Amino acid sequence: RSHRVAVIPGDGIGLEVIEAGKKVLEALAQKSGDFTFQFEDFDWSSQRYLEKGEYIPEGGLEKLAKFDAIYFGAVGSQDVPDHVSLWELRLAICQGFDQYANVRPARVLPGVNSRLKGAEEIDWVIVRENSEGEYSGNGGRVHQGHAEEVGTEVSVFTRKGIERIHRFAFELAQSRPCKKLTLVTKSNAQRHGMVLWDEVFFEVAKEFPDVDIDRELVDAVTTRMVLKPETMDVIVATNLHADILSDLAAALSGSLGIAPTANLNPEKTFPSMFEPIHGSAFDIAGKGIANPVGSFWTAAMLLDHLGETTASERLMAAIERLTASGLQTKDLGGSATTRDVTQAICSDIEQQ
Amino acid sequence: RSHRVAVIPGDGIGLEVIEAGKKVLEALAQKSGDFTFQFEDFDWSSQRYLEKGEYIPEGGLEKLAKFDAIYFGAVGSQDVPDHVSLWELRLAICQGFDQYANVRPARVLPGVNSRLKGAEEIDWVIVRENSEGEYSGNGGRVHQGHAEEVGTEVSVFTRKGIERIHRFAFELAQSRPCKKLTLVTKSNAQRHGMVLWDEVFFEVAKEFPDVDIDRELVDAVTTRMVLKPETMDVIVATNLHADILSDLAAALSGSLGIAPTANLNPEKTFPSMFEPIHGSAFDIAGKGIANPVGSFWTAAMLLDHLGETTASERLMAAIERLTASGLQTKDLGGSATTRDVTQAICSDIEQQ
Ligand SMILES: CC(C)[C@H](C(=O)O)[C@@H](O)C(=O)O
Ligand SMILES: CC(C)[C@H](C(=O)O)[C@@H](O)C(=O)O
Repeated sequence: RSHRVAVIPGDGIGLEVIEAGKKVLEALAQKSGDFTFQFEDFDWSSQRYLEKGEYIPEGGLEKLAKFDAIYFGAVGSQDVPDHVSLWELRLAICQGFDQYANVRPARVLPGVNSRLKGAEEIDWVIVRENSEGEYSGNGGRVHQGHAEEVGTEVSVFTRKGIERIHRFAFELAQSRPCKKLTLVTKSNAQRHGMVLWDEVFFEVAKEFPDVDIDRELVDAVTTRMVLKPETMDVIVATNLHADILSDLAAALSGSLGIAPTANLNPEKTFPSMFEPIHGSAFDIAGKGIANPVGSFWTAAMLLDHLGETTASERLMAAIERLTASGLQTKDLGGSATTRDVTQAICSDIEQQ
Repeated sequence: RSHRVAVIPGDGIGLEVIEAGKKVLEALAQKSGDFTFQFEDFDWSSQRYLEKGEYIPEGGLEKLAKFDAIYFGAVGSQDVPDHVSLWELRLAICQGFDQYANVRPARVLPGVNSRLKGAEEIDWVIVRENSEGEYSGNGGRVHQGHAEEVGTEVSVFTRKGIERIHRFAFELAQSRPCKKLTLVTKSNAQRHGMVLWDEVFFEVAKEFPDVDIDRELVDAVTTRMVLKPETMDVIVATNLHADILSDLAAALSGSLGIAPTANLNPEKTFPSMFEPIHGSAFDIAGKGIANPVGSFWTAAMLLDHLGETTASERLMAAIERLTASGLQTKDLGGSATTRDVTQAICSDIEQQ
């Protein structure tokens, strides 16, 4: 089996951690002997934007569409407004390839510290609707610059969009030992599209009688995450709500620098995209000290998506041995370099 | 000086904690000798709604408008949908009286436990826009019940509404020792009304050169709350964002059962409303075991608003001696009753 993977390192430490991640993927392919990778690099970055005025060249998405998966580093630069890099690169790919299911696992890996007492109980997967809702780009401004100015933001929810994300979340919950799914919403304050979101959830729930469901308001769920982390498993929420909750989850589980994200097109009509949740971190870029564990965990999700479940499990086990060993980069209080950590995990994979 | 206070105990434990709070307010008035209270009770509750089909009787708001302040318990019942009690009682008062500034302090009182390591550093005031934005009630549904259904939620932000909440937040920040204000937004993803929110912030900032400002995205600010609580002071955010952040703040500081909220009409054209953040908690209602500390802390904010700053400070000091003393109700792991705690704080106030 050969997997064609498009690689977009992006900006800052994105380049370093993705290079490290590729080495680990190669080590796993060698270990297995059953599959290989064909990587192709794309220089879609803020530097390219500053030079050529565009992140994605003409015809770029069509080219990308032929790959089996996309391995993404980080994007963001002081010299480009955030909303430009977001809409011209990340959202262009996510929305262009209809990667409507954003999946973010949160748990405390061995040896990783959390500031939350009882954080060991955290074992969540946050499923984020990734194609509409609060990120629809709708809204406007009238009487601009005048005292009577009004600005709007319009969240657009479609039955189809809601149904497919709930079905995805139910299937994911069904595949896990606890089979629990928590619906997050704010339909007491928002009584239109948000109510549709709820209604469709309970319709889809009928198809999954073996999944244990409950619901929380988005404000209340933050307190449950802090006070009763053990009571949740899979969480499904809108684009904005889950954006907030997944950052909180990463902070509570101590995994802000190492957690991964999958932007999935579950039907595989288009390639899916895998990226660590951390940003480009220009302050430490180029020094060889970035923590590559996020790109490894991301690689494990990518392998899983490609059907290489044995390699994915092998990699997760190696990551856990690595974090448990105490070999840590500066962000976690250690002094190991990106290369030290990468070599350690590659030789661990070879030796197992 | 005589203060006319409208009392709306509402539902469940609201009745018990507000009764306790009134006793404490009376004790403070006696201690001072300089002011008195005229309380008037209103039975606006879910029970009333179930019996008469309305929370607020005809002409109710006009009657309420004549008071100096409103002391509110809790609302919410299993027998009434949340969105009904919200829109027909709380939002009717908040929006009817243009209580556009919702203020929520968060800090760890002595003797109170938090699950967050380093929570002692928390000393925040969250300022929530309380009259528009995501709670505008706008939006709709088309093709209802059909496959092509679309639902929307429209957040409406006005320049006037934004300007007054930012100015309020700056003035509040200016009055505190650190003079810091953090703007929370999501203007990278939402590029219309949310951008207006940012722009007006920086315009208003020019009037307050002595306030130290910074900004965060709403997702990133949750991680800062967990990891660097000491770096924030006053936080200003939209109706929905601040709703989420203030619940998180209460959970992180261990004050979920005891924190207060003020719904302010800063110009005093209409009365302001003060309420503990906790709900009606029907599971423990009527047993005399509810924690009244939230209604005491709420009473301190009410006193402050009425200009009784000495009494307000006296009450906060008494609350801190109370929590430090370890006399705790069941929710905090103790076995004291509502009455025990109320008597303890009243005699402490008398004796000081
Ligand atoms: C960069 C930012 C706009 C993005 C988002 O809000 O989607 C990020 O926070 C994320 O969660 O991936
Ligand atoms: C009851 C609920 C709708 C309310 C809100 O969202 O405003 C509550 O969460 C609050 O924060 O006071």
